[in-house]
Amino acid sequence: MKIKVGVLGATGMVGQRFIQLLNDHPWFEISSLTASKRSEGKRYSEAAKWYIEGEMPEQIRDMEVLPTKPDIDVDLVFSALPSDVAKTVEPEFAKKGIAVASNASAHRMEEDIPLIIPEVNPEHLALIEEQKKKRKWDGFIVTNPNCSTIMLTLSLKPIDDMFSVKEVAVVTMQAISGAGYSGVPSMAILGNIIPYIGKEEEKMESEPLKILGKVENKKVKNANIKISAACNRVPVVDGHTEAVFVKLEEKAGVKDIIDAFESFKGAPQRYKLPTAPEKPIYVMQDITRPQPRIDVMVEKGMAVSVGRIRTDKLFDFKWVVLGHNTIRGAAGASVLNAELLVKEGYI
Amino acid sequence: MKIKVGVLGATGMVGQRFIQLLNDHPWFEISSLTASKRSEGKRYSEAAKWYIEGEMPEQIRDMEVLPTKPDIDVDLVFSALPSDVAKTVEPEFAKKGIAVASNASAHRMEEDIPLIIPEVNPEHLALIEEQKKKRKWDGFIVTNPNCSTIMLTLSLKPIDDMFSVKEVAVVTMQAISGAGYSGVPSMAILGNIIPYIGKEEEKMESEPLKILGKVENKKVKNANIKISAACNRVPVVDGHTEAVFVKLEEKAGVKDIIDAFESFKGAPQRYKLPTAPEKPIYVMQDITRPQPRIDVMVEKGMAVSVGRIRTDKLFDFKWVVLGHNTIRGAAGASVLNAELLVKEGYI
Amino acid sequence: MKIKVGVLGATGMVGQRFIQLLNDHPWFEISSLTASKRSEGKRYSEAAKWYIEGEMPEQIRDMEVLPTKPDIDVDLVFSALPSDVAKTVEPEFAKKGIAVASNASAHRMEEDIPLIIPEVNPEHLALIEEQKKKRKWDGFIVTNPNCSTIMLTLSLKPIDDMFSVKEVAVVTMQAISGAGYSGVPSMAILGNIIPYIGKEEEKMESEPLKILGKVENKKVKNANIKISAACNRVPVVDGHTEAVFVKLEEKAGVKDIIDAFESFKGAPQRYKLPTAPEKPIYVMQDITRPQPRIDVMVEKGMAVSVGRIRTDKLFDFKWVVLGHNTIRGAAGASVLNAELLVKEGYI
Amino acid sequence: MKIKVGVLGATGMVGQRFIQLLNDHPWFEISSLTASKRSEGKRYSEAAKWYIEGEMPEQIRDMEVLPTKPDIDVDLVFSALPSDVAKTVEPEFAKKGIAVASNASAHRMEEDIPLIIPEVNPEHLALIEEQKKKRKWDGFIVTNPNCSTIMLTLSLKPIDDMFSVKEVAVVTMQAISGAGYSGVPSMAILGNIIPYIGKEEEKMESEPLKILGKVENKKVKNANIKISAACNRVPVVDGHTEAVFVKLEEKAGVKDIIDAFESFKGAPQRYKLPTAPEKPIYVMQDITRPQPRIDVMVEKGMAVSVGRIRTDKLFDFKWVVLGHNTIRGAAGASVLNAELLVKEGYI
Repeated sequence: MKIKVGVLGATGMVGQRFIQLLNDHPWFEISSLTASKRSEGKRYSEAAKWYIEGEMPEQIRDMEVLPTKPDIDVDLVFSALPSDVAKTVEPEFAKKGIAVASNASAHRMEEDIPLIIPEVNPEHLALIEEQKKKRKWDGFIVTNPNCSTIMLTLSLKPIDDMFSVKEVAVVTMQAISGAGYSGVPSMAILGNIIPYIGKEEEKMESEPLKILGKVENKKVKNANIKISAACNRVPVVDGHTEAVFVKLEEKAGVKDIIDAFESFKGAPQRYKLPTAPEKPIYVMQDITRPQPRIDVMVEKGMAVSVGRIRTDKLFDFKWVVLGHNTIRGAAGASVLNAELLVKEGYI
Repeated sequence: MKIKVGVLGATGMVGQRFIQLLNDHPWFEISSLTASKRSEGKRYSEAAKWYIEGEMPEQIRDMEVLPTKPDIDVDLVFSALPSDVAKTVEPEFAKKGIAVASNASAHRMEEDIPLIIPEVNPEHLALIEEQKKKRKWDGFIVTNPNCSTIMLTLSLKPIDDMFSVKEVAVVTMQAISGAGYSGVPSMAILGNIIPYIGKEEEKMESEPLKILGKVENKKVKNANIKISAACNRVPVVDGHTEAVFVKLEEKAGVKDIIDAFESFKGAPQRYKLPTAPEKPIYVMQDITRPQPRIDVMVEKGMAVSVGRIRTDKLFDFKWVVLGHNTIRGAAGASVLNAELLVKEGYI
Repeated sequence: MKIKVGVLGATGMVGQRFIQLLNDHPWFEISSLTASKRSEGKRYSEAAKWYIEGEMPEQIRDMEVLPTKPDIDVDLVFSALPSDVAKTVEPEFAKKGIAVASNASAHRMEEDIPLIIPEVNPEHLALIEEQKKKRKWDGFIVTNPNCSTIMLTLSLKPIDDMFSVKEVAVVTMQAISGAGYSGVPSMAILGNIIPYIGKEEEKMESEPLKILGKVENKKVKNANIKISAACNRVPVVDGHTEAVFVKLEEKAGVKDIIDAFESFKGAPQRYKLPTAPEKPIYVMQDITRPQPRIDVMVEKGMAVSVGRIRTDKLFDFKWVVLGHNTIRGAAGASVLNAELLVKEGYI
Repeated sequence: MKIKVGVLGATGMVGQRFIQLLNDHPWFEISSLTASKRSEGKRYSEAAKWYIEGEMPEQIRDMEVLPTKPDIDVDLVFSALPSDVAKTVEPEFAKKGIAVASNASAHRMEEDIPLIIPEVNPEHLALIEEQKKKRKWDGFIVTNPNCSTIMLTLSLKPIDDMFSVKEVAVVTMQAISGAGYSGVPSMAILGNIIPYIGKEEEKMESEPLKILGKVENKKVKNANIKISAACNRVPVVDGHTEAVFVKLEEKAGVKDIIDAFESFKGAPQRYKLPTAPEKPIYVMQDITRPQPRIDVMVEKGMAVSVGRIRTDKLFDFKWVVLGHNTIRGAAGASVLNAELLVKEGYI
């Protein structure tokens, strides 16, 4: 018996990735799809133009698109809602006893709401208990980070564990799919770079501190790391590439760093969660990689690729990390969170 | 009476930019074009396929392409030679009494060879005297930096003058034209990023130290700055975009930084050199700019554009700088060097 | 004394091209800018983000954006209105005695409204008299064709004049700017082709028949040509490229066709209109051209380029024609129409 | 027991596609890889940089790259040789008793050499007998058409069978991978169209006539169809898109055409060949498709997609056809040919 789930905001780019990842999922079964007013009452195939590779799965073509209200009969919803909508709507679902695995940024930084990368900080799920008690909710909200944060933080975690990260500078080159299907006009980006993405740098400079922090007294104590980010949009379809500079507390050599990446495993690998990559981090030997068009689908888009690991005269090390922004960085992140929740008995 | 000049390596991308910039130049007149064996003896229009916007200038279509040997009758040559060729060939020209304005990297870091950005370190031309004496040359070599170095260093100079730059991290997003016409296969870069450019990071981490250094005892004493660079190729035709992080010795506010950029002028502006931009640095107000496709031709490609100047929690400031890699960053840089040489009596 | 003109729909792509072309125009002076509700009452620089190369002209930055109503004090307006708005609004201007040079498709095919390419059918302006009489207007409307129609028809005209065109098949590869700034999401077109453009094929199959027709009894008698079009969107910023197949009534050789293109001149060239290209058609010798990125700005975007003229075993000849879709194909077309109107005494 | 096969020209784009398709093939097993002088004697992983999605298969990484000589111990070779090399080398293999499934153009139009699309003209394999006899070869050569020809001809076949095709005009928009990895410099194609591909139009205008022809007296009698082609390179990675205009002998309606496409099956489908698509032709309902980035991988790249089927006033019908140029249009075409050869007892 599969767990019945809903997808909130099912017609957009991330919503479609949710559908793609949940189609034939061994534990979850989509029973409700919601979207905005414009789509309510329509069949999904009428409401949504399918944007991503492959065809729209047959099973959901004829499902009715529902309003995004907590009266749907599910135990778990995946939220691809815009942040301003998520702000008020997600708590309504949680109040009604529904578990919310959210990709929205609205609640990420709230004290009692876990911001989770399953390989990095599964122990932060402990906040759920406090959250339910304090807010008097039967359900709860668990969030995953911003897409760019996920790639960065996955690459920092094994190094932080072994050599204690102190300072990070990161410059991103982010794919157009990160802004949604209509987010970036072709006139804006064809043969061009846009050196600004709204609110992205703020997220990258704050979210990793919470994720890499420790739960103490039912709160997260932020990691003591300084991060500076500069975010750019580039004419790439899928895959955020990040140039990372890192200063460490402890001494390390390039081989130590590579070994830390190569040997890294987390809860999803130990639990063998259905969506978990076998290895969360791949180290590329070719000095010209990782490259988004070629490497973005490593482990079906659920692993990140790291390359060009080298010492640095200003920081201690620098490298490049790449990941699929709408799979590992969004829908896949929420699904992996939900699988962790199931495995640890929260759902 | 114009000065007769030669262009060495006249058939490639940078060679063509030289021809474009020297066509109708008020001081210089192309009288010789040289290229590799393959092109020798052909008319220029047979030897070269014209790659850049506009048509091949009429005046040079029928000129014979000569071998790259110092027996041509000119006072000045512009060198767009590959570095390995430049290594041995440029000195032969200098020995014969010819001034060489070189875009090649071969001699840039040699002790007695000036590495010049006219707005930044015109006083380094003083090395020429020593160079001629030591090498017993009647002519001399003057070089301009790597394309990415030029944009970075132009943006560092006014800030270094006023607040003393201590540390710099820079991540580049570089145009395909920087690798020459056939340098980057479309299969390699369409919808993609390549996070590696051979020898580029080394140049960016060393050249600015010489350029921002001081001439003492007929030598350049390098500036005391730590620089770390990460270089990327992006699917943009012309224009290198650079995300720059800077730590300063002295306190400054964002307005100070903007004022320093806005008020910056150098020797080319004071001398009103023909190819000099009116202002070498433009500060963009729009938070989404500078962007290469839109802003690369500011002042005919001879000015750089700076934007997103903001404080930083890890360094002190960060900004974005953009410039035209084959104009300001290559052929235009050499031509401006040559104009400075004329104005200061070296030619 | 310049003629005061208004630009209707001044904030979009074509509106901005109008402003660019009318800035410093010797005969016209922009005195009014209009746009939709959203922009009314704002300064132009607040209402519009400048999309095209170069900066927003200083003169219009502080002009107030007016509602699109015929109470503005001008003799001539250029219309970049969407077709559905143009349908009702342009007649209101004409009724008030204003000459409307329109790029909208709304009225192009109406019997008494001239559809003009000044090099092709200037004599169709004779319809104006009938239009004013019949509609009891003090002003009038003159239209220019669809962007793709203009390139095609300019290349057909000299051949039709000499050898009588009977059949035409044309396949277009159209730039993204043709759909307006936000018309084509980057997710839709990056590394892709869209083999459909709404209503474009219908326009290309009908408009040339009117333009190449003859005025008889105050009406246009359509040309007796069969045209079939297939239209595609491609990832090119500016410039529509068209593969054209043509069957002729009379015998001709390749050289005849080339000569006909090369020697072609029309009213704008004879009158030396300010925006007229010296030659409306350029024949490229290089077998790999015309190419949009390289050739689109020939004669400031007002000439078309033709290449690969060759005999054909199915039709008689085939060639490639390229032109700038928002200059020659839109704003420049309307401005050239207006210049013709002035020269011939209609304004 | 699998059949041992060799891949000639194994390091290039098409060679890599062969390896990808033959890896884990149920009937064939790669036992030899050959390449040019430069690669001889190296391990495959040293000789070749892997260009296509996914990683280089483990099994072939350590295989030695051999010279392209007929002394290898195989029954069948797949040839991805350049045409000029194939001209002399392929016959040497055939002479030694090896079956050559060639993607090269060198021998396609020779009278006694079959030019095969298994769904279209499997009966042309009858030429093999004549070929072996006449040339006194123990082996033989079978070729597949040019990539653009395959898409076109697959879409013509069902229509020709039912309504007899008389005239065809076709304009292609071809992917960069069609020119090999280094074939198209990014400077040539980024944001651009090149309206010329060497020898492509000639192939498209002649090859379909042979393929759609009938074997009579041990020769192919060409089909009586007139074809005109215009070929363009576009900035798309994989997938040739073709706008096709068709005049028929017999009357037909749009529904007839759609039905003919939908119901079309050929020998590969009847034989259930391992590489055969379930359906060779997919009809897209969405008016904006087929699109290369989205639709190129239908049936693992072995089916073509057809869309926008409509009547035409000049011809009778027009449509758009899309296929994967290096899978269905090259390596996959040869592999399917070889599977047909096995099934019909030629190997």
